[in-house]
Amino acid sequence: MRESELLQHIYATTSGPTPLVPIPPGDDMAMLLVGDQSIMVAVDQVVAGRHVDLQTTPLELVGRKAVTRSLSDVAAMAGHPVALLATAALPPDFGHDRATTLFDAMRATADRYGCPLVGGDIAIHCDASAPLVCTVTALARPGPAGAVCRTGARPGDHLCVTGRLGGSLEADGLGRHLSFEPRIHEALILAGLLESRLHAMIDISDGLARDAFHLATGSGVRIEVDTSRIPCNDGLDWQRAVGDGEDYELCFAAVGDVPTSLGGLPVTVIGRVIEADQCDGPRLVFMAGEEVFDATTLGWEHRS
Amino acid sequence: MRESELLQHIYATTSGPTPLVPIPPGDDMAMLLVGDQSIMVAVDQVVAGRHVDLQTTPLELVGRKAVTRSLSDVAAMAGHPVALLATAALPPDFGHDRATTLFDAMRATADRYGCPLVGGDIAIHCDASAPLVCTVTALARPGPAGAVCRTGARPGDHLCVTGRLGGSLEADGLGRHLSFEPRIHEALILAGLLESRLHAMIDISDGLARDAFHLATGSGVRIEVDTSRIPCNDGLDWQRAVGDGEDYELCFAAVGDVPTSLGGLPVTVIGRVIEADQCDGPRLVFMAGEEVFDATTLGWEHRS
Repeated sequence: MRESELLQHIYATTSGPTPLVPIPPGDDMAMLLVGDQSIMVAVDQVVAGRHVDLQTTPLELVGRKAVTRSLSDVAAMAGHPVALLATAALPPDFGHDRATTLFDAMRATADRYGCPLVGGDIAIHCDASAPLVCTVTALARPGPAGAVCRTGARPGDHLCVTGRLGGSLEADGLGRHLSFEPRIHEALILAGLLESRLHAMIDISDGLARDAFHLATGSGVRIEVDTSRIPCNDGLDWQRAVGDGEDYELCFAAVGDVPTSLGGLPVTVIGRVIEADQCDGPRLVFMAGEEVFDATTLGWEHRS
Repeated sequence: MRESELLQHIYATTSGPTPLVPIPPGDDMAMLLVGDQSIMVAVDQVVAGRHVDLQTTPLELVGRKAVTRSLSDVAAMAGHPVALLATAALPPDFGHDRATTLFDAMRATADRYGCPLVGGDIAIHCDASAPLVCTVTALARPGPAGAVCRTGARPGDHLCVTGRLGGSLEADGLGRHLSFEPRIHEALILAGLLESRLHAMIDISDGLARDAFHLATGSGVRIEVDTSRIPCNDGLDWQRAVGDGEDYELCFAAVGDVPTSLGGLPVTVIGRVIEADQCDGPRLVFMAGEEVFDATTLGWEHRS
């Protein structure tokens, strides 16, 4: 049983775009039309043992991560955050003080991104060994380029990433996956600069090899990445940089000139988008000098 | 550690109404202003072992309940459902087929109320004994009486309930709590009939004794219930009817004439709203002939 397969089942049995749901489930956020307003929505989970280790991770960082993961989805759509809702299912011995620490961290993180926590629910497990489960639902409005989906990449686009990739689980003490900044501000600057030239975007949560693959298949194109251009974090090779995941940087496809930085965050052109029907071959390849690696044969797609 | 106390902490540290969040957390749903549109949002959880017993409850009914509980919050605000998002944290041995059964039930239930499932997330627990945790986030629009809060009851109002109360956990085979209809349609009829005369409403999830108490304290009034008028389910006395919970009927305060039924569902006037400052005494009392029972001394407020 794989999470990604189950989600595919859910998406496959959901109807496609409709007038009231112009972006159906399957992208970083869905989009609804409510009256004349477009509202984007998504929900994400943090499960103890699965996404965080409560033995080593302060609760402040658990709450922070639950919120920043959802805000990274807002960034991926180049949206403005509007509001969040949070839930927690708590072990029975969790304790009042730790529960309030967790929710205070979620609210403080939400507030820092101008996104009020407007609802929540708390349940207490019956089973003493049951793990903490947090969820965060994010609501957002489209930014200056509209809702930027993962399905809009076109032949001729550059493929770009923000920041540096790899090593998120070990870096910066407890791991950068606990301290990353969702790229909301940078995504909005990018959308304002490029507007309709910004064709597709995704946040790098599962690793570039998987997320760029989603972008290629979602857009019906082929993507070629030049491994020598991948901005790897210090001491890491390109395989680590594209496989590690939890970077929460942005990967986007755009045509024409792209900025070299966004509010101080470097932007790197790492590849190009070409027609998929030029070959029946792989949707995402990594070009390392003379060698060509098919992303689907590198094993990363089996993650999760 | 009590769920209700933790939620009170969260509400207390959340800012009050603001221009962009005219109804803050603490009611059945919060309300946001997005552009010129009012959007109501809420999230609820179903935890195996806590809210449902997976040994005895078919997964179809677990998925149904996860959705109908959230839709009952929409009914409590007299709103139109717009969309839902769902999550599940699954035990590792849950299995692909059972997971899709659960999500198919959630989607089918959502569709039946004209409320598409537009997002979701699935995580798989690491621990083999970890329980299923589902969450459902609901989005809704205000109905013809606007967002009907639990804070608007006024002296002179009637206190009314829909349907019949009590015994939900045992009734109708596996229990009415698994098969109840969220009163969305009836709430909208009521709001259309009464408009501004419909002052306050709540759904009876924790039992009338607790939920009418929330309505009384939220509105700053005293409520007197005539126990002889309480529509008890067959074979139950009034104490069971007000204490059992999980009825998911509506309790509302309105002035002037109220309908005796809504689309075939009976409506009963069971009490009246009076000034709280006529006495320092209890906010909710049950009048049983010569006897007067203070709701806070009956032990129900300790339920969580």
